[in-house]
Amino acid sequence: MKTYLECIPCFFRQGLEAARMTTKDEEKQRKVLDEIAKELPKFSPESTPPEMGKKIHRIVRQVTESSDPYRKLKDKYNKIALGLFPQFKERAKKANDPLLMGIKMATAGNIIDFGISTNHIDIPEEIENILKQDFAIFNYTQFKKALDSAGEILYIADNSAEVVFDRVLVEVIVEESGKKVIYVVREKPVINDATIKDALFCGIDKVAKVISSGSDGPGTFLSSARDEFLAYFNRARLIISKGQGNYETLSGEDRPIFFLLKAKCSVIARDLGCKKGDIVLK
Amino acid sequence: MKTYLECIPCFFRQGLEAARMTTKDEEKQRKVLDEIAKELPKFSPESTPPEMGKKIHRIVRQVTESSDPYRKLKDKYNKIALGLFPQFKERAKKANDPLLMGIKMATAGNIIDFGISTNHIDIPEEIENILKQDFAIFNYTQFKKALDSAGEILYIADNSAEVVFDRVLVEVIVEESGKKVIYVVREKPVINDATIKDALFCGIDKVAKVISSGSDGPGTFLSSARDEFLAYFNRARLIISKGQGNYETLSGEDRPIFFLLKAKCSVIARDLGCKKGDIVLK
Repeated sequence: MKTYLECIPCFFRQGLEAARMTTKDEEKQRKVLDEIAKELPKFSPESTPPEMGKKIHRIVRQVTESSDPYRKLKDKYNKIALGLFPQFKERAKKANDPLLMGIKMATAGNIIDFGISTNHIDIPEEIENILKQDFAIFNYTQFKKALDSAGEILYIADNSAEVVFDRVLVEVIVEESGKKVIYVVREKPVINDATIKDALFCGIDKVAKVISSGSDGPGTFLSSARDEFLAYFNRARLIISKGQGNYETLSGEDRPIFFLLKAKCSVIARDLGCKKGDIVLK
Repeated sequence: MKTYLECIPCFFRQGLEAARMTTKDEEKQRKVLDEIAKELPKFSPESTPPEMGKKIHRIVRQVTESSDPYRKLKDKYNKIALGLFPQFKERAKKANDPLLMGIKMATAGNIIDFGISTNHIDIPEEIENILKQDFAIFNYTQFKKALDSAGEILYIADNSAEVVFDRVLVEVIVEESGKKVIYVVREKPVINDATIKDALFCGIDKVAKVISSGSDGPGTFLSSARDEFLAYFNRARLIISKGQGNYETLSGEDRPIFFLLKAKCSVIARDLGCKKGDIVLK
């Protein structure tokens, strides 16, 4: 997805939120915004928003001298989510259609996104709300067909803590089909996106092979991706891509990708052909 | 009021809205945002937001080569508002406390603000909503005292079309007290702020002396104001200041100013000590 002009004010909002998350020093917060401003005129409108996101979060790390600003927040939500795992797993197992319930839970997990807002998230409540919601776009038949024909499944993660809900879906897939799942995370911390550390904490390595895409931005960047990831990406017959950042960076690729996300901003909703707040399997 | 960091993303939103109002050319819209980005690092956090607003709207005018981008919109809403004048004037006259009703109507008129959003405004409906609303801060007793002691009243306008609702209040003041009112507008067009042209169209010159403050930005800038305005400003014993832009540029002045506005953003609400959406006479 290209960068729309509406994304530009949002870059500054994101930069400010990330700076405030990291430091109380108002001069440094302002410096972050000034550095983003200096990058902006060099930024091509044909680039995807996470390309700018990558620059923004590099600036935040440099100015605030913090390599992982969201670490505490990630630890907190990882723990909360992991505590909820047994009950959600049980619920998916007992559902009429465990695959469908697993997809819903994985989508629900996509609410744990501190790129949109750093307000407190009541995970159980928010998850229940999403479980009650109908998908605005739901290519479930095609998804099941792709799942049947795929030998292995490449699953590209979005946020930490969300991993726990991905794990419900991955376990259902593995238990039902016996297929191998490769679970892909970011190389370096950016916002609250999942890294290897988060994936291991949430225990998804018990049912999937965990690899890094090589990304240090809030998306999946093929031009700078790791060879191992690219090999899987180019041969996969089913790719599950979670969240907005992966949608923004991969929506132009001609690969069998199913995007699973909640559309949290109106620009992405418009690009997807749905409304803000909708959940989508496309 | 100083510029808070939250104002910075909003500068880009405002610039984009103004650019889109003026041109359909996406390259020019992007150019506006890039030029704002170049100005940002030079902008002192001690300056008021309308100081940046002045730069933003100069950029919009330069890049789009339009001297008055909001002209059509202003003409449209001036006409609608003027058509409503007789009924609102009549209602104020018949009210138990015409001065109070005049103040409410003048505040209600402050909704006609295209700096906040360029969405369509249903004036009669919005006005009725505000008329039903209670003031969150209402220094009415002090206001009446200042009105009694003042020889002449300096009334600093905000938006075009809003002038019609100011006229209700000004006519009530003039009819009840016989005092002279000096009505102050911007020198040059910026957003939909009122200029001499708007003031004359809305007929406020029939009951007040209309002058320009010399401003070409969305506020009142004392450092570059016209001498005539400054003379009134420095001797006035009652100054009525309408809207956010005048609040932002004049809130630090030690003069008998009553700020009459709807707090349309959370930053200003926090600075005023009220909530977003509240109406205030302070």
